Formats: sequence, structure tokens, C-alpha cells
Amino acid sequence: MAAAASSLLAAASASTSRAAISTRRPRAAPAAASTPSSSRSSCPPLRASSARSRRGRFFIAAAAPTMQPPAVSRVSAVVDVDLGDRSYPIYIGPGLLDEPDLLQRHVIGKRVLVVTNTTVAPLYLEKVTWALTHDNPNVSVESVILPDGEKYKDMDTLMKVFDKAVESRLDRRCTFVALGGGVIGDMCGFAAAAFLRGVNFIQIPTTLMSQVDSSVGGKTGINHPLGKNLIGAFYQPQCVLIDTETLNTLPDRELASGIGEVVKYGLIRDAPFFEWQEKNMAALLAREPSALTYAIKRSCENKAEVVAQDEKESGLRATLNLGHTFGHAIETGLGYGEWLHGEAVAAGTVMAADMSYRLGWIDEPLKRRIFDILEQAKLPVAPPKGMTVEKFKKIMAVDKKVADGLLRLILLKGPLGGCVFTGDYDRKALDETLRAFCDN
Amino acid sequence: MAAAASSLLAAASASTSRAAISTRRPRAAPAAASTPSSSRSSCPPLRASSARSRRGRFFIAAAAPTMQPPAVSRVSAVVDVDLGDRSYPIYIGPGLLDEPDLLQRHVIGKRVLVVTNTTVAPLYLEKVTWALTHDNPNVSVESVILPDGEKYKDMDTLMKVFDKAVESRLDRRCTFVALGGGVIGDMCGFAAAAFLRGVNFIQIPTTLMSQVDSSVGGKTGINHPLGKNLIGAFYQPQCVLIDTETLNTLPDRELASGIGEVVKYGLIRDAPFFEWQEKNMAALLAREPSALTYAIKRSCENKAEVVAQDEKESGLRATLNLGHTFGHAIETGLGYGEWLHGEAVAAGTVMAADMSYRLGWIDEPLKRRIFDILEQAKLPVAPPKGMTVEKFKKIMAVDKKVADGLLRLILLKGPLGGCVFTGDYDRKALDETLRAFCDN
Repeated sequence: MAAAASSLLAAASASTSRAAISTRRPRAAPAAASTPSSSRSSCPPLRASSARSRRGRFFIAAAAPTMQPPAVSRVSAVVDVDLGDRSYPIYIGPGLLDEPDLLQRHVIGKRVLVVTNTTVAPLYLEKVTWALTHDNPNVSVESVILPDGEKYKDMDTLMKVFDKAVESRLDRRCTFVALGGGVIGDMCGFAAAAFLRGVNFIQIPTTLMSQVDSSVGGKTGINHPLGKNLIGAFYQPQCVLIDTETLNTLPDRELASGIGEVVKYGLIRDAPFFEWQEKNMAALLAREPSALTYAIKRSCENKAEVVAQDEKESGLRATLNLGHTFGHAIETGLGYGEWLHGEAVAAGTVMAADMSYRLGWIDEPLKRRIFDILEQAKLPVAPPKGMTVEKFKKIMAVDKKVADGLLRLILLKGPLGGCVFTGDYDRKALDETLRAFCDN
Repeated sequence: MAAAASSLLAAASASTSRAAISTRRPRAAPAAASTPSSSRSSCPPLRASSARSRRGRFFIAAAAPTMQPPAVSRVSAVVDVDLGDRSYPIYIGPGLLDEPDLLQRHVIGKRVLVVTNTTVAPLYLEKVTWALTHDNPNVSVESVILPDGEKYKDMDTLMKVFDKAVESRLDRRCTFVALGGGVIGDMCGFAAAAFLRGVNFIQIPTTLMSQVDSSVGGKTGINHPLGKNLIGAFYQPQCVLIDTETLNTLPDRELASGIGEVVKYGLIRDAPFFEWQEKNMAALLAREPSALTYAIKRSCENKAEVVAQDEKESGLRATLNLGHTFGHAIETGLGYGEWLHGEAVAAGTVMAADMSYRLGWIDEPLKRRIFDILEQAKLPVAPPKGMTVEKFKKIMAVDKKVADGLLRLILLKGPLGGCVFTGDYDRKALDETLRAFCDN
């Protein structure tokens, strides 16, 4: 199916842009308000076999193969996540759910289980089911609709996925499809990793948060009452399909939450991207399609580069968790679902910046810029009331980045775009930051 | 630690025997009642680093390194499971829990969680804790004691392991130790796979079943109410430590259950081993140490060879499930824990042999020998009352070996030692076998 479908997506005419992803800092983004993706362009779809043999690359656009009637594709960009035989493409573009073969080529077996939630199902389940089955009568689709929200990212809810899979008699040759935000992606991915010890799965993220971060890189899992994401697996999808038009139905608060993670990439490794965000935040908040597409693509490229170098988070990958140790503590301390993940991360990022400044690792203007951009994005810049110093410390003690009892943090260091992952810092700075941001 | 400990275990003098595991059929076992392992011999311990770089080999005994004071080790055999960077050794011998450094060299981090059950804890938990901490004050040991039995191999019980790990603030640099039979090994292994997305673990199997089969090869998981082992992971241990003296406390029925799996290896790929079993069944049932040690070693070698060729069960590995599709149906249909796993597998093996005979794939004398050896081992040779044809069919429909709706089975074919894994068989033979063994 993959080979047959690939010819249907050729672009009529477009320029080619390829860049091997090998440097730590990506290429500079354009400083102007207009983005390089503002005109829709097409790219050749990646067959799974060829995608899996390529070293991390991305395609903004490419020429059409000859000998085939040109067919318009809506794929604006393909970012490859390079993980050897677990490599996969991220397709990005508006209206990708209207291109059935893009999805179908990554389905294994004849049975599909779509995992979604009560919010997303009424919006996109029918469309995804159509995309999976259009001109493809051999495939049958089941679905399980979970309650919506971080507080349901638990073992009881996960069991509903297994129940549905077993009751539907799905076998090893089946495909799970995650349709929703980060919670759905994490739960569906873990269910796919564990069902029959591993079945195929596809990510269709429908929130900005999941499109720029959680759907990429294979981290899956659920929460434990005492801590976020403590139970899970590293398990890579077969592809990630980002239809940017799904953002049209996203609430403003969810959009801002995703921007929190976009800001992160700029801070930890991509200064030009951060500078682009400073100039284009209004366009992002106004959901200007080209701005959103560029932000998603650039975020996925950053994430793909990091994951390709350190899939299982032995070091570098941890830097993607800037602000997350404080943020997870807020999420756990408040009760899952009170704040959105990106909201907690935003407050956590301000705290990490504050601590980095107290350590003398970044200067005051940078600390200020971080505060300003997150505030402009209408994100929280301090933890909520009720988060005491003790509460932070107690929850952070079970963070996954603790090693042999030592809490390691991602902190900013040097000029914009530099960071460190370290347990070697003055504890006083941590105490001072906590005291500065907490009531007691 | 690994390097320091390795010199302590050198044998004073012994002959060397190495054989690369590369042929499908292992070397012939001695036909006589005495076994080649009847005299205790020693072997050089494998350091993790060197073990992981070796192609599958086993050592019955080896010469001592020079320049080191000789120290007696109780390791009778080491079987390597060759899986590239996930390779690991299986240590086999009497009294291995009295050798702390054998265990300690495979511990990662300073924190250990021993997962065991209410039956095994009073017998061996103290000893294992001693072995982990003797002359090793840096390591602290926690334990979680689960209820004993297959019916507790479920998500609720698994959560107790996660609860203990989180409450104890274990971090990624910790080690889970499975101390018990197959249920404990499967659950602890899956917990280790999923806790913080994967931590180190060690198998210390204490039943014959787990020593000859379930502790080796990385299959972990739990049951779903509708089917066995439907939720889990492929996750390899750091080592398997088989202290054959733990069999001294094993009930007769559990011993027989393990023999069911030993018989399997002979039938599917090792005719000389089957012939050895026919001559030595009385010695096995009488727990003659050298007979047991030989049976364990030979079983582990067979399993290691198969797993090294097909870790994730894309084909060959499925042959290890001879009798298991019928057997799992019995276990699920009766309610988990009514019959022991090996009991259900024994009845399932007789059914598979019967079906193979009806298909004309094996002759009558072989079918008879299979029946006889299992009966001699005091194992069930037919399913229990209450297992109807319909019940078998309904449960087998969700077996993991179903692919695109087709039930594939492991069946015997040709002379002793040959089998096939296939969905290409006459359905009439399956129906006839079910009708012959069921009440209706």
C-alpha cells in the first residue's frame, strides 16, 4: 500500500530544501514576521521503508516525480525522526485528514482501534474513520472514547483501552491510532506498547501541545497519584500526522499551553527561533496559519534532532524538560487537570530562569525576556497559591530525573539558547527561588 | 564492582567445554541415567561487559585464571542469552544465593526492590536481602510481598509494585529483583519495564517452571480477565540466577508443572533431550540434583537459542508455545489459578499431539510416547470437565497468535523433535480434537 500511495502525493512544482540534521543548533529562522512556510507547498511523501533508512532530514518542499500525473498534496513539511529501524515521518500541513492514503500507508493489519476522548470524538472521529476506510474496504475501525483531561491519565482509564482491544478481539496485526492531545497520545501509545507486548500505532495530535511536543519521540505513559508519567514506555509511533486545521477548534487556553513548549525549544537550543517567536507572538495567538505551521515544524525539527541523539533520555533529551520539574510539581500538587501542562511548564520555566539567574548563569535581560514572552502568550508566570516550598520539595523528590537521591534540573546557562542538565548547583539558589515564588 | 567480584569465583581446576549455539538442534544428551553435570564443577563468572559481547555459548566448567587465589564457586553452568546489547547470563547451580557477589555485580544503583510473594518471602527473602547487602553497605533493599497465585497476576496487584516503588522514591538508577515463580517474574519484569519507562531487573526464579522457561527470554506481563498475558512487554533482565536448592521447598505439584515445559523442549527441537527424559523421569521426580540441574541447563540452552534467533516472536519463538493455546484456554476458562500453568500446558500438549496425529503429521507411537511421559510426570493428559468445545473456541479466538483473524497453532510434524507454527491446517482436525477431549 505504501508504494502505491506514494505516487499520489507528488507536488506539481516546488523548490527543494533539505538539510541534514546534525548540528546541535538548527538553522536560523527568518527574523521577519512572514514565515518561510507561508505559501503552501508540497513534498514527496516518505514511504516507510525509505524514511527508515534516512538520516534525520526535513523537507519543506520537493519536486514532483516525473511520469506521474501531478496530484496536489497538502503536506507542508515532513520531519523525519531518525531512530534506525524505529524511524518515522512527521507530516505537517492543513487538511491532511482529507488525504486518506497519507494515513492508510502506515496502517498495519486490517483492524484499527482509534483512541480518543469525549471532546475530540464529536469533532474528528468521523473524519478519521473516513480517512482510514476510504477506498479501503479491508480495514475495519473500532474506537474507544475516554473522558477528557489529565486527571484521567491513570491506570483505570488505560484499562478501558485494553478492555476494548480484547473485547474486539484485536490481534498483533492491528493498529492503534491516538486522536487527541497529549493525554490521549501518551495513553494510547502506552496501550499500544503493552497490548500483546506491542502493536503498531499512529499519532494524530489535535492540540498545539501534542503537535509540537508530546506526539513526537515515543515517550508514553500514565500518571501515578504521587507523580506525573511515572509508569510508561519508550515506544515510537509509525508516523505522526499533524493536520494544522485541527487547531481551529482548539480553545485559546489550550493554544497558549502549547506555546509554552514552543518557547522552550528556543530557550534550550534555538536562539533564532526564540527571536522569531518574540516578533511573531501576536500572529501565533491570532492563529495565523503560516505562523502556526512554521512554529510546529521548527519545534518538531528541534525535538527530532534531540530524540535522534538520545532516544532514552540518558542525557541530552532531558533538556527538553526545561521548567518541567517545577511544572510537574505544580500539576501533581494542584491535582491533575487543574492547570494545563503548558501552563504549569510556563510557570516552571520562569522559576528555572529565576534560579539560573540567581546562580549567575544567565543575565537579567534574558530572564526578563523569558518572563515577557510567556506573559505575552497569556501563560502563568508564577505557581498558583497553595504551592508551598515544602510541597514543591516533596513532589520533586520523586521526579524521574532524580538519580541516586540527587535532584537534577535543566537550567539555562550563558547566552540565549544555552542550557545544562545538572545536579551540580548551589542548593541555596533552589531554596531562594522556591521561597521567592511560594507563599511560605 | 563487576570486575572486582569476578576474580573471586575462579574454579581451582576443571575441564573446559564450550560450544557455540548456532545449530537448530542441540547436541545429543547422554542416554545414560547419570548426567554430565552430576559432579559439581565451576565456571568463570561472566562480567556483564564480556557476557554482552559474546555469541551464545555455555560453559559447563572452565579453568581458573592464573594469579588469583582459587575460590570455589557453586555455578554449575552459565548459559548466555545472546541478544546484542541486551544479552545476559543465566547462572545455574546449587547454593548460588550463598554467593553474594554473583548477584551484586548485576545490581545497578544503590536501591533494590525485591518483588516476591507470601509463599516465597518466608523462605528466601531474608537470604536474598543478605546476598544483596553482604559486604555492600551502599545498597538498601525494599521489598513488596504480593499474594501468591496466577489469579493475582493482574493490574491491581501490579499497581502495588508501582505504589511501593514510588512511595520508596526509587529513581531510574535502581534494580528490581523478581524472587519467585513465573507469576512473580512476569509481573516484576513488566513493572521494571514500565516504572519510569524502564529500570534494571534481575530474575531469581524459585520454581522449576520459571527456571526452565518463564524467567528466560524477556516475556513479561499480566493477564486480562479475558485472556492470559495480553498486557506486557518484551523486557530482558540483567541476569537470571537459578539456585537449584530452592527446588527443595517446591511442592510436588509445582515440580511436575515445570516438567511439563521441560518435555516441550524435547518435542519441538531436541529429540535426544526427550529420550533422556524418558529414561530419567523417575530421577527428576525424585529431585535427584544432578538430573534436575541437567534438565534446567538443557532447557535454558534450548530457550536461549530460540530467543536469540527470534526475540520478539515473529516466528520461531512461537514454537515454544506448543500446547499453550489449548493450555491458556484451560487456564482462562477454569479461572486463573485453578490449574497450574504446566498442568494446563501438559493437557494442551496432548491435545496438540492428538491434532497433529489426526492431520497425519506424526505417527501413533510418538503420540503414545507423549501421552506416556506426561502421565509418568503425573501431569493431566486431558482438559478438565467443564471445558466445552465452544469455551475452547471462544477463548482461543483472542490468543496472541491469532493474526488477521486466523488462529495459528504449534503442531508436531515428522519424527520426534520436529514442529511447525502454522495457520494452514484442516479445521476439521481441530474440531475433532476438541470434540474428542471435551464433554460436548
